[in-house]
Amino acid sequence: MRAVQYLEVGEPPRVVDVDAPEPGPGQILLKVTAAGVCHSDLAVMGWPADAFPYPLPLTLGHEGAGRVEAVGADVGSVAVGDSVVVYGPWGCGTCRACSLGMENYCPRAAELGIRPPGLGRPGALAEYLLVDSERHVVPIGDLDPVRTVPLTDAGLTPYHAIKRSLPRLHAGGTAVVIGAGGLGHVGIQLLRAVSATTVVALDVREESRELALRSGAHHALPSDEGAVRTVRELTGGTGATAVFDFVGAQATVDLAAQMVGMDADITVVGIAGGVLPVSFGSPPYGTRVGTTYWGTRSELIELVELARQGAVGVHVERYGLEEGPEIYERMEAGRIQGRAVVVPGS
Amino acid sequence: MRAVQYLEVGEPPRVVDVDAPEPGPGQILLKVTAAGVCHSDLAVMGWPADAFPYPLPLTLGHEGAGRVEAVGADVGSVAVGDSVVVYGPWGCGTCRACSLGMENYCPRAAELGIRPPGLGRPGALAEYLLVDSERHVVPIGDLDPVRTVPLTDAGLTPYHAIKRSLPRLHAGGTAVVIGAGGLGHVGIQLLRAVSATTVVALDVREESRELALRSGAHHALPSDEGAVRTVRELTGGTGATAVFDFVGAQATVDLAAQMVGMDADITVVGIAGGVLPVSFGSPPYGTRVGTTYWGTRSELIELVELARQGAVGVHVERYGLEEGPEIYERMEAGRIQGRAVVVPGS
Amino acid sequence: MRAVQYLEVGEPPRVVDVDAPEPGPGQILLKVTAAGVCHSDLAVMGWPADAFPYPLPLTLGHEGAGRVEAVGADVGSVAVGDSVVVYGPWGCGTCRACSLGMENYCPRAAELGIRPPGLGRPGALAEYLLVDSERHVVPIGDLDPVRTVPLTDAGLTPYHAIKRSLPRLHAGGTAVVIGAGGLGHVGIQLLRAVSATTVVALDVREESRELALRSGAHHALPSDEGAVRTVRELTGGTGATAVFDFVGAQATVDLAAQMVGMDADITVVGIAGGVLPVSFGSPPYGTRVGTTYWGTRSELIELVELARQGAVGVHVERYGLEEGPEIYERMEAGRIQGRAVVVPGS
Amino acid sequence: MRAVQYLEVGEPPRVVDVDAPEPGPGQILLKVTAAGVCHSDLAVMGWPADAFPYPLPLTLGHEGAGRVEAVGADVGSVAVGDSVVVYGPWGCGTCRACSLGMENYCPRAAELGIRPPGLGRPGALAEYLLVDSERHVVPIGDLDPVRTVPLTDAGLTPYHAIKRSLPRLHAGGTAVVIGAGGLGHVGIQLLRAVSATTVVALDVREESRELALRSGAHHALPSDEGAVRTVRELTGGTGATAVFDFVGAQATVDLAAQMVGMDADITVVGIAGGVLPVSFGSPPYGTRVGTTYWGTRSELIELVELARQGAVGVHVERYGLEEGPEIYERMEAGRIQGRAVVVPGS
Repeated sequence: MRAVQYLEVGEPPRVVDVDAPEPGPGQILLKVTAAGVCHSDLAVMGWPADAFPYPLPLTLGHEGAGRVEAVGADVGSVAVGDSVVVYGPWGCGTCRACSLGMENYCPRAAELGIRPPGLGRPGALAEYLLVDSERHVVPIGDLDPVRTVPLTDAGLTPYHAIKRSLPRLHAGGTAVVIGAGGLGHVGIQLLRAVSATTVVALDVREESRELALRSGAHHALPSDEGAVRTVRELTGGTGATAVFDFVGAQATVDLAAQMVGMDADITVVGIAGGVLPVSFGSPPYGTRVGTTYWGTRSELIELVELARQGAVGVHVERYGLEEGPEIYERMEAGRIQGRAVVVPGS
Repeated sequence: MRAVQYLEVGEPPRVVDVDAPEPGPGQILLKVTAAGVCHSDLAVMGWPADAFPYPLPLTLGHEGAGRVEAVGADVGSVAVGDSVVVYGPWGCGTCRACSLGMENYCPRAAELGIRPPGLGRPGALAEYLLVDSERHVVPIGDLDPVRTVPLTDAGLTPYHAIKRSLPRLHAGGTAVVIGAGGLGHVGIQLLRAVSATTVVALDVREESRELALRSGAHHALPSDEGAVRTVRELTGGTGATAVFDFVGAQATVDLAAQMVGMDADITVVGIAGGVLPVSFGSPPYGTRVGTTYWGTRSELIELVELARQGAVGVHVERYGLEEGPEIYERMEAGRIQGRAVVVPGS
Repeated sequence: MRAVQYLEVGEPPRVVDVDAPEPGPGQILLKVTAAGVCHSDLAVMGWPADAFPYPLPLTLGHEGAGRVEAVGADVGSVAVGDSVVVYGPWGCGTCRACSLGMENYCPRAAELGIRPPGLGRPGALAEYLLVDSERHVVPIGDLDPVRTVPLTDAGLTPYHAIKRSLPRLHAGGTAVVIGAGGLGHVGIQLLRAVSATTVVALDVREESRELALRSGAHHALPSDEGAVRTVRELTGGTGATAVFDFVGAQATVDLAAQMVGMDADITVVGIAGGVLPVSFGSPPYGTRVGTTYWGTRSELIELVELARQGAVGVHVERYGLEEGPEIYERMEAGRIQGRAVVVPGS
Repeated sequence: MRAVQYLEVGEPPRVVDVDAPEPGPGQILLKVTAAGVCHSDLAVMGWPADAFPYPLPLTLGHEGAGRVEAVGADVGSVAVGDSVVVYGPWGCGTCRACSLGMENYCPRAAELGIRPPGLGRPGALAEYLLVDSERHVVPIGDLDPVRTVPLTDAGLTPYHAIKRSLPRLHAGGTAVVIGAGGLGHVGIQLLRAVSATTVVALDVREESRELALRSGAHHALPSDEGAVRTVRELTGGTGATAVFDFVGAQATVDLAAQMVGMDADITVVGIAGGVLPVSFGSPPYGTRVGTTYWGTRSELIELVELARQGAVGVHVERYGLEEGPEIYERMEAGRIQGRAVVVPGS
């Protein structure tokens, strides 16, 4: 089969021929119907050879949807022909965190060498994808896989951050979304769907602020010092109750710390390298700062329901599998609008 | 192998020879080290033939511990020789409830014919026990299986009820435990271990009240109208913040409704057939009444940790496998002190 | 001043002249701008003389809005001229429940003789209303008092029930609202505003089902056995995750028990006298049944924010103070559409 | 009356004669029975004149207990002669945070000039103390005021931090307490009282580690790099689920970040000036870092109940009012064991 692989550190990915996998006991073979291409792969491909954590070659793609092509022994909940999306952050499945569906925080995954497809295991940018367990797929019925596949990361990551802060997202609270791009504009839709909080979007790009407003933000502001004043005004001086930073640069985490109120949450989701210092000086008392990683199994199940209701939609650009390497080039050049999705065979 | 089976509705169980099972993909074969015998089996064996829900013959025993004898393909988290206990309320493993470890409330288990060992599937009162998935065992290391096995039901059932009511079990709150028998005396220990609430035990039997006090109850009272007054006094008139009824008879649910306060919880755990009417007259405003069923995967994992700390202990009586039928006779006659545990080969 | 008073048990209320109150220390005198008339007053006026709990004559009206006319010593947070609504379920203010703003469940209020305006204390159906503490008013700024005043009970009561069940109102869950009348149609709006759950309304009246759909319900069904089947179908067989019964008759609580799933919530808000029996037979395992009473201080604060956002609106009919007795007649005859609101001086 | 006052920035406090206050409407006058002396006053008295936020002279002491000497109009819940402790972090009483009893995070207190006794308002190191509202006292009945008064800060501050992290304090979790001094040793007792988590204490001083073990810690370790390894070992490599840093120095917050696991909490309670940088590199994914300030009203109510049960005890050293200035000298020199409590008239 054809697959988009990262073959050598520092070299661009290429489309190559590899053997199609076969499902062993408990496993599921998917014929890929859609695979989202994520900006974070650029970061992965930017790591130096001596720090590169995965075996090469690596089939890329950690957002996957497919039709069940074959199942191994002991798979009962899905059948050949079912349309599914893949839950990516695999864990051991048996520890306390995994028993709560929080495989994204499985403390044993790393030591056991368990890795997500596209981030260590062969990923979804291929004709076929092997999934290790039926618990890692969620049926999507007649939902369009192309429009649904970005939910597995670009949807799940903001949804997880939002669900953790739900107590701060009460009516009268104010959630600030920094960065209204791929994850941020989904986050805005999700905030509106699951809460009655006021949503303020911050972005340096005017077109992203427009996207934010179309996605349901109550306010959209340039991402600068003026926004700190405006958020203070909008909140009667008390500050935001939750800030979700989908950029995560030094400039944005600094803004987050300045515009947040007491007893609030700052979640840094973006991986642009910012460092937020926590002390008694700042942020305000009672406010918690943290990063999150991807999301939980139950959250992905809920997200598919939200998609079914039409509560969340992602703007996608459709590509063929052979165009995989080109997508990364376009991405690097900032020329992708929304989420690039590869549809093998298209 | 030898197994205690219920062969025909209305007849007492018998010890018979059956084929030992073999583990298929994803499955685990345990050499049983301990199997708890639960009073609820008497209720099961009391059901009439036309309403009996399980295929016969049925190997009894829904509390199981064992040493891993063999594993099927695709089992990675346990190895031959490991000592484990079995999580009993199996679910489909893939729905939202199961993704949160709440397989005890899996809405699909019944339609899929998934049943717990001893309650539809072959149970633990045998030399070997087949477990369908590695997610349904919890390693216990060097803990004594005989003393640990009752935690899988006699511990997990009260622990689940308690965990659901944790917000009511604050310092200054009062938890009433009705019935300080097999489940109740474990419930008392667990309440003391995980909360600072005041614990009041109610039981008609003096020896059970003594057991309640030894288990950590602050007060132990006869289970009658006088207890309603005493609980009101102990709570400054406001009533209990949580009542756990491990009897569940009409007399006890009536007491529960009378001694509970506003915005409290009544959990009916015992299956003695009581009916608690909820209306604006009673129980007080804001108080919630419900039943629970067994417990969740993460709760069993936590319970094993509590056993490791020595925070919970169950009084056990040890029997051989051939004595299985006799245990039920003694149980019926009220002649079992604590939990009867079968140790095959002993 | 003029006031609508219940003077004698069994007699209709009358508009009479009474002395206007004066604010003592800590108190606030409101010039009433709007007073909602609640159906529950009919129940109150139906109680027999020997069971009537309040001193007579009683100025009616437990939904109040007003402009601050005067404040007593030690009132700092509001000033003369401020427009406010009144939080009704007054508690002692110092116990644990009150310290959490849950004055509606204050265990000491009854023994201390603390009662809400219109339900023991002089109510809002008058030209002036005395409020005992600044913590019992919420400023509404330039919101219309007439449209806002019903939130203090017809909004707060369903909001409180909904907030308690928030964990059941996840995406993919299903909330059933029984009775799409005064409280129910507000409940539907609130469910849509604060959650992504699917909302199914049940009502025997076609015009109420239409109101339910306009209020945001995804489905509206006749309130009968057919609804049980439909809810089972809509939920893939698993049943509702939350049922809010705003009728509370025997027929509706029976429906609630039949259409709910496992590990769900049934909240009986309506006071039509139904009794819901809880046992191991029904409702399903893990499901909790309870009544609620009014709501908390923080919930009223949040509701005013929801009104400010336009997320909740109540259809009101406007009357003069002299028409007070007539409103109750029309209400009894089922001839009030939405909420009747008295505007003194209009 | 006599009072310990800070008269001039940079000068040591002195005992002086001042007028005794009188209670206005809503206020309570206490005859002080005990006043705790807190180490944080040294920090306050170390601030430079141009940054000193409070009017001078300032009567010190923000831990107060007293007997009600007189009450103003509109005080109903306490009576002359009642023994009470004082809730210190006063808020406006009417905002959403205050309506939930979280006056310690009142966003309006600062702008309204509302300050705690001893931190802006006249404090408890005097013969009489004026409290602004009955909601700011908690009756203690026949509990010893001298032993109870430290709970109002040295107890409430750790209790608040612990209550916020309760979901991380499950059985099998591990809480690390850094600094087993005045607050830390109370925190250890509280962790044991309200949870079944494993408690590991870290302190550089051997006598403090001994105090930690006597207070209920399962392990006590020197506060250094070796502790990081030991905590990793004790947790099977996964790290602590909660770290409470009662020192808050750079060295201790660095340790906290190294020994914590994923999806955990780090709460910096100590004010020794450490800065904890949060980024994708550290601490682990999902872990939240924040400071807290004092505690909530309901938490103080619960603490008094814990004291009544004997679940928490503070080692106190008793002093006369005239010795107030000397206490600060001894404190500065590290010569106070446990909590210094002033008993006026003794």
